[in-house]
Amino acid sequence: MVVAAAPLPLPRPIVRLQYLPIPPYRHTAIPVIPAVPARPPDEELVPLTAAELVERHRPVLDRALEAIRTREYWSPYPEHPKAYGTEHGSPDAAAGKAAFEALLGRRFELDQPGTDGWVPGEVSPYGIGLGTEYPHADPDVLLPAMRAALPAWRDAGPGVRAAVCLEILARINARTHEFAHAVMHTSGQAYLMALQAGGPHAQDRGLEAVAYAYAEQTRLPGAAEWTKPQGRRDPLRLRKEFTAVPRGVALLVGCNTFPTWNGYPGLFASLATGNPVLVKPHPRAVLPLALTVRTAREVLAEAGFDPDLVALAAERDGEGVAKELAVRPEIRIVDYTGSTAFGDWLEANARQAVVFTEKAGVNTVLVDSTDDYRGMLGNLAFSLSLYSGQMCTTPQNLLIPRGGIDTDTGHRSYDEVVSDLAGAVDKLLGDDRRAVALLGAIVNPGVLERLEAAAGPDGPGELALVSRAVAHPEFPEATVRTPLVVKLDGDRPESEPVLLEECFGPVSFAVAVDSTARAVELLRRTVRERGAMTVGAYTTSPQVERLVTEACLEECAQLSLNLTGGVYVNQTAAFSDLHGSGGNPAASAALCDAAFVADRFRTVEVRRPA
Amino acid sequence: MVVAAAPLPLPRPIVRLQYLPIPPYRHTAIPVIPAVPARPPDEELVPLTAAELVERHRPVLDRALEAIRTREYWSPYPEHPKAYGTEHGSPDAAAGKAAFEALLGRRFELDQPGTDGWVPGEVSPYGIGLGTEYPHADPDVLLPAMRAALPAWRDAGPGVRAAVCLEILARINARTHEFAHAVMHTSGQAYLMALQAGGPHAQDRGLEAVAYAYAEQTRLPGAAEWTKPQGRRDPLRLRKEFTAVPRGVALLVGCNTFPTWNGYPGLFASLATGNPVLVKPHPRAVLPLALTVRTAREVLAEAGFDPDLVALAAERDGEGVAKELAVRPEIRIVDYTGSTAFGDWLEANARQAVVFTEKAGVNTVLVDSTDDYRGMLGNLAFSLSLYSGQMCTTPQNLLIPRGGIDTDTGHRSYDEVVSDLAGAVDKLLGDDRRAVALLGAIVNPGVLERLEAAAGPDGPGELALVSRAVAHPEFPEATVRTPLVVKLDGDRPESEPVLLEECFGPVSFAVAVDSTARAVELLRRTVRERGAMTVGAYTTSPQVERLVTEACLEECAQLSLNLTGGVYVNQTAAFSDLHGSGGNPAASAALCDAAFVADRFRTVEVRRPA
Repeated sequence: MVVAAAPLPLPRPIVRLQYLPIPPYRHTAIPVIPAVPARPPDEELVPLTAAELVERHRPVLDRALEAIRTREYWSPYPEHPKAYGTEHGSPDAAAGKAAFEALLGRRFELDQPGTDGWVPGEVSPYGIGLGTEYPHADPDVLLPAMRAALPAWRDAGPGVRAAVCLEILARINARTHEFAHAVMHTSGQAYLMALQAGGPHAQDRGLEAVAYAYAEQTRLPGAAEWTKPQGRRDPLRLRKEFTAVPRGVALLVGCNTFPTWNGYPGLFASLATGNPVLVKPHPRAVLPLALTVRTAREVLAEAGFDPDLVALAAERDGEGVAKELAVRPEIRIVDYTGSTAFGDWLEANARQAVVFTEKAGVNTVLVDSTDDYRGMLGNLAFSLSLYSGQMCTTPQNLLIPRGGIDTDTGHRSYDEVVSDLAGAVDKLLGDDRRAVALLGAIVNPGVLERLEAAAGPDGPGELALVSRAVAHPEFPEATVRTPLVVKLDGDRPESEPVLLEECFGPVSFAVAVDSTARAVELLRRTVRERGAMTVGAYTTSPQVERLVTEACLEECAQLSLNLTGGVYVNQTAAFSDLHGSGGNPAASAALCDAAFVADRFRTVEVRRPA
Repeated sequence: MVVAAAPLPLPRPIVRLQYLPIPPYRHTAIPVIPAVPARPPDEELVPLTAAELVERHRPVLDRALEAIRTREYWSPYPEHPKAYGTEHGSPDAAAGKAAFEALLGRRFELDQPGTDGWVPGEVSPYGIGLGTEYPHADPDVLLPAMRAALPAWRDAGPGVRAAVCLEILARINARTHEFAHAVMHTSGQAYLMALQAGGPHAQDRGLEAVAYAYAEQTRLPGAAEWTKPQGRRDPLRLRKEFTAVPRGVALLVGCNTFPTWNGYPGLFASLATGNPVLVKPHPRAVLPLALTVRTAREVLAEAGFDPDLVALAAERDGEGVAKELAVRPEIRIVDYTGSTAFGDWLEANARQAVVFTEKAGVNTVLVDSTDDYRGMLGNLAFSLSLYSGQMCTTPQNLLIPRGGIDTDTGHRSYDEVVSDLAGAVDKLLGDDRRAVALLGAIVNPGVLERLEAAAGPDGPGELALVSRAVAHPEFPEATVRTPLVVKLDGDRPESEPVLLEECFGPVSFAVAVDSTARAVELLRRTVRERGAMTVGAYTTSPQVERLVTEACLEECAQLSLNLTGGVYVNQTAAFSDLHGSGGNPAASAALCDAAFVADRFRTVEVRRPA
């Protein structure tokens, strides 16, 4: 409704966008399979007007705008791998793999201004050297070119910008298998997870950002008449025009573990609000974002815009390009996912820019009581195992009353709960093939070091669950590890520094606490001092539920209660769940809300006598 | 529509708000006279439920939400002084004056926690020592008390908070004459301007902020069901609850010239989003904000909330309380209007808070050509004279081509334009009584010093219009001055430091430029380097109009074109015009847009199996 009522400004009469695959759209909560046709031969391409481009993507935008308002389940991008294949008009698994392999061992050409050399690409956590080389950019050449691309993109207006962004997402979606391999071999995620989290779920978050950007930019009318009565005299009359203007060039600083999922919200929020975007990937996870940049440049050029609206800034490992770029005067927006140290540095130093950061946090699950003990154990075991706990949302501190908990299978002592949880993880990961499909590979040596330190003789406590190495059937050089669970006494002072620091990777602590009230206190303190992306709690007591809820409202943390089925505390769904709160030290923004987009542009008013 | 559809959460069954004057409301663009009944005797007061409170204010809120979307003219608070009087249910001019006078020469009691002394009050720019004393607060006592008031205010929800804010505004509106005297005798504004800009126009901006706050907080539903299909298996079902949570205590740092107009947006945006607000007025302009705080505390208490949700932090002149408060950990939001130096300091140092600043800027009017020479001169003369140019929106640099301009009265040389403008100001201010009613008084010695320096022998250029002292018929000690206009050559390097620095007060420069193109270049540079709250331009050329518009879009400045009637470049209307852009150095925020409120609260989601 909102979209239909809002005017879509179309100042450019014809765009030369010639190839418009687009997922079909139905007004149903059931995801549909996108019909992404193979690109027709060039001679069959037809030019589209800007209005036609907007019309083709309007239903999806419209539906996304509805979803972010109702928060019901919706996605235009199916998550099942079989939805991507020739019978649906997109490359199938084999073709996607072949496309990925064709990228290896060669230069990744982007034809950007200011390319002054080539930087070597990634070594996969699965042990494959990708052998790709990426262009290295001279910011003194590239940034002015990007800035020069801005006015035409600004003048295109929110409607055309949203349509172009949706076209980019549609083309990325059609290549989901190819992207899955790129995400897998940079993040270490298992294939299915790389396909889903790095593919449709990331695309969802990108689309969500486009929807928020469109909604924000169209809250003021393009023009308004203003008539102020003046008693017996003639009224005062003005005509006012309102234009959304971008801030400038945006910098996206990508992360190692979720290059697309964590990158797309900022990328598309900035682009849809009119800002050129310079993408600075993590040196270990370039390929997924390089493919994204190439796709975006291709669509922008076809639509008649300057492709330099999106560009790549690959760097040599340790070069520190982000630090240099982030304080350039051209950079007016920074999106960042990564360590707290560099996030804090950006907030303190990139003062010429609006800065959005997702940093480290310490996630807590409070285990007070449950009426589905088995479901709780299974759910927690999965949460700890998924991607070897290498998620900013994985629980770290499991707070369990020292006196045990009440369950539907009777009272369970602290030790029983811990050993039952260890048993649930063992069972879940008992089969190596299944384990590998859930765990993926350890993303980098830092994670492995932390794991080994926590498991070693100088580790913080008694091991409740030993981490084991799993042999990968296909990639013998991959480092695959099951989760480690360490027992800690939450009421002993020496536990404090361990509990209050993020130990990113497959390490969790089963923390004995004197009481649930004491656990809630520890939870509050952890969120307040260290931040948290997620909080979980299991309880059958309304009073405990109130206590935990109140703590999360006070400390501004997202809470999942009594998850025992197929939804996990470490997963959030675009259009419905908020990722992070932006109100505790773990992140300065939430994905996505109005605050994530509203300050990426400003509104200029021109008024004159009517 | 938006409001009617959105649920208004009413967790508190009964509020003890007993006295509810409220302006009547009609669906018309014509302002109506508020029927604010005199407070009935206590025994006639009746308790209202929260729902009744919300219902009483809903029509005004609803209409405000519509106005910020359509940007048409609207205000529920009439600007004519005669709209406030006993026949309309509110104190009339005499009663308002008496109420003001009753405040003088005594302590301004607020009954706040942590009052550790009294600070002497203001001396009016009109020469009257107000003799008022204000409570001085110990932040170690006051801030925890304010923080403790937060949870119940948060739990009340956006609907009740908006209604309470509208009740506060309604009571302030009913006392418009009393506030007018308070604003006049602290800012130096003339009575009519103090009444309008400090009264209904400030109330409009406060209401606008409440409307934005309400709209932002209700964009997510209070609760949602989420059902994700799982093929042949049962779908996943979750129930999700979304709660707007405030950031913490907000600090409002008020200014000398527009204590209410510049203070209300931040105050009401923070309060309506659930944050307690500590009001730190300018030491020379305490009374209007002290009255505001008292009114807010009275309404909050009657509505069953802790009055410490709004408190005053008066300071001794030079005490530097804002600097101390702004970096306290309890302070999570800062709103500030004042010097660039302190605004920059706040942005750099109040890192624990979201900071909104309005600082200095250099406003330009480009004079290229006109088809209403007389109208242009009259309009500019008024703009320069209003409140002796002591507005952040007053034009400073008038850029005029050296070769003159084309007008409906023939070609006019640069010298003719300048002397005609001087003549128009002289004519406007020829009658002392009328001059005083327009000029008001010089607000503080700093303004007078700048004026005298610019007019003196070491001033920057030849005087085109001499500033004269005007005797105030009622207040002989008031310092009243007419505007000074100084000629400058915009193409000489020595002019640059003068042109590129704000000279706040009744000083403007008639800047000769080689060409209109050169003028646009200077305009761009001025906005980029020094910021601007306003830009004006007079031109009959579509090409020049395009050039100036493009410059304003690029540099993010609000543009008024060809104003020749009763609307002035230095005035903006709430619900329709944006004040500042938030995109150039003059201000980090615009009044009001979504970005001004969206980050004052965060959303906490609690999800559980359905």
